[in-house]
Amino acid sequence: MKNEFEWIRSIAPSKHRRASVIKGIGDDAAVIRPKVGYDIVLAVDTLVEGVHFTKNTMPLKAIGYKALAVNVSDLAAMGAEPLYYMVSIAVPKENWEQEEINEIYEGMGEAGEEYDMDLIGGDTISTSRDLVITVQVTGRVEEYRQLLRSDAETNDIVFLTGPVGMSAAGLDELLEKGKDAWGDDPFIQAHQWPIAHVEHGRFFAESGERIALNDVSDGVAHEAKEIAESSGVDLHLDWEKMPRLDLFQHVPLTKQRKWLLHGGEDFSLLGTMRASLFQQMKKQLQKKGLSLYQIGEVRPGRGNVWLKHEGTEKLLYDGGYTHF
Amino acid sequence: MKNEFEWIRSIAPSKHRRASVIKGIGDDAAVIRPKVGYDIVLAVDTLVEGVHFTKNTMPLKAIGYKALAVNVSDLAAMGAEPLYYMVSIAVPKENWEQEEINEIYEGMGEAGEEYDMDLIGGDTISTSRDLVITVQVTGRVEEYRQLLRSDAETNDIVFLTGPVGMSAAGLDELLEKGKDAWGDDPFIQAHQWPIAHVEHGRFFAESGERIALNDVSDGVAHEAKEIAESSGVDLHLDWEKMPRLDLFQHVPLTKQRKWLLHGGEDFSLLGTMRASLFQQMKKQLQKKGLSLYQIGEVRPGRGNVWLKHEGTEKLLYDGGYTHF
Repeated sequence: MKNEFEWIRSIAPSKHRRASVIKGIGDDAAVIRPKVGYDIVLAVDTLVEGVHFTKNTMPLKAIGYKALAVNVSDLAAMGAEPLYYMVSIAVPKENWEQEEINEIYEGMGEAGEEYDMDLIGGDTISTSRDLVITVQVTGRVEEYRQLLRSDAETNDIVFLTGPVGMSAAGLDELLEKGKDAWGDDPFIQAHQWPIAHVEHGRFFAESGERIALNDVSDGVAHEAKEIAESSGVDLHLDWEKMPRLDLFQHVPLTKQRKWLLHGGEDFSLLGTMRASLFQQMKKQLQKKGLSLYQIGEVRPGRGNVWLKHEGTEKLLYDGGYTHF
Repeated sequence: MKNEFEWIRSIAPSKHRRASVIKGIGDDAAVIRPKVGYDIVLAVDTLVEGVHFTKNTMPLKAIGYKALAVNVSDLAAMGAEPLYYMVSIAVPKENWEQEEINEIYEGMGEAGEEYDMDLIGGDTISTSRDLVITVQVTGRVEEYRQLLRSDAETNDIVFLTGPVGMSAAGLDELLEKGKDAWGDDPFIQAHQWPIAHVEHGRFFAESGERIALNDVSDGVAHEAKEIAESSGVDLHLDWEKMPRLDLFQHVPLTKQRKWLLHGGEDFSLLGTMRASLFQQMKKQLQKKGLSLYQIGEVRPGRGNVWLKHEGTEKLLYDGGYTHF
């Protein structure tokens, strides 16, 4: 057990990737210099042991990697470029060794490298039972270019930037088989090492087009409901157009629906754009090796989400998500 | 139990104090517009039930108030002006009612009003046992004016902006008597409703002088050690010069020393400045109704802290603070 001074020195990066970091770890607060013409984008998200992960569902490094990635995904959904992160971690007095905490930080460091971000601060405190990791991220987006969920309009198409349901499928497997499920299976990988769609977000922001955007952290139904409510329109989704349905062919339809519509933590982006824009944007993204799928359309309404499946269209239950 | 949409609407401010908030609560992330000529200052701090507070030591509103104030204190210690805050709160499935969480948010709102800050985002998740509140704050300071702990130099004087040890004294009383101790007692008030010394911090930053600064969150000994280590000097403190020793006359010297030197959470600022500057700054601060106390001096050294007491000077143990 190192003392605080030594420990902070051990996790503080020796140099910063971003020249805009005036002061990183090692004072009361971090100081950064904003770039003229850009707005600052801030998000915070917490992962709790037993709720978002256990030592059986996630390798230690993946816990750290994912804690940062879920936050980066929030920046991506605003069209922002990720820059810095801070970590606050509550460590239980029992069941966790400092070496394990260090591994979590290593995983976060890998995600930091992936997204070109600097660790600029945070704190570590004790708690009695569950490990709680809170990550705060800062990014920037060109003034007036942020992508809001309230910007959907009638006659837009609804799109996804990648498959959904894979993380939920992986989690079900992990809850059933524990560590025996770990491996290269794409569902397991999707759950343990999620990818934030930053390149998509930046592409949309730089385009200057009106695009409504959310990241799929709480499931397509929930995120579509947020866009519909914020924009005062209805979203009409088409089951047959959901990306990569082939991956789920081997499972019963009830499970497919649960995973693809209500499974969270995929971090694909769900959005809407002018219908006439879709083919052109899809082609431009393909040139970058990125995908885009049309899964529905926007019609006049009062904030509802509908799903067309096997010839009939029904109101899509939003999952009844509550807070506590 | 409200659903997420309703709950977020209930805590989201209907308007912002700061015109620089482009997008607050209600999207994937918050967007703010930085002011040209200013650096952005970021801090994050977590309070854990059972470690930093219990329902016996703190009124619910005070838990929220303090969670924001401890973070604002970090901004004050950088010389920054507080602007915005985000809250991530992990709520146990048992022992906490939504009404109680709302009271915590009310207390945070009171501190937000006090420091003229906007709530711009956050999240709420479930946990199994302890309430964990993580607050992230954003402020700004004029370029090149941030106050670092590494700026102390030989022949500086060491100062405090207010009394220390009061919060620790209050906590001891609260741990002994529980809710029976609640009331107007200044020690209890200092523990439950701490005040961040933002005006001092801004005064120092605006002065343009070289001033080393830390907030006393972990006790004078610990904070002095941080300044000494970061600056590569020794700090020599004088017990007789500690502010408001009269408040502690009724307690044994061992307790006085524990509270005043090692008691945390006072949020006075500890710093150093050129000796020739002290009287003039003290007078200017007095005109604003603010205090300043000289409690020692800076001499050449290798990062140690010394205490003169009853005629002899000894190395001051830094409390042996460790992380876990």
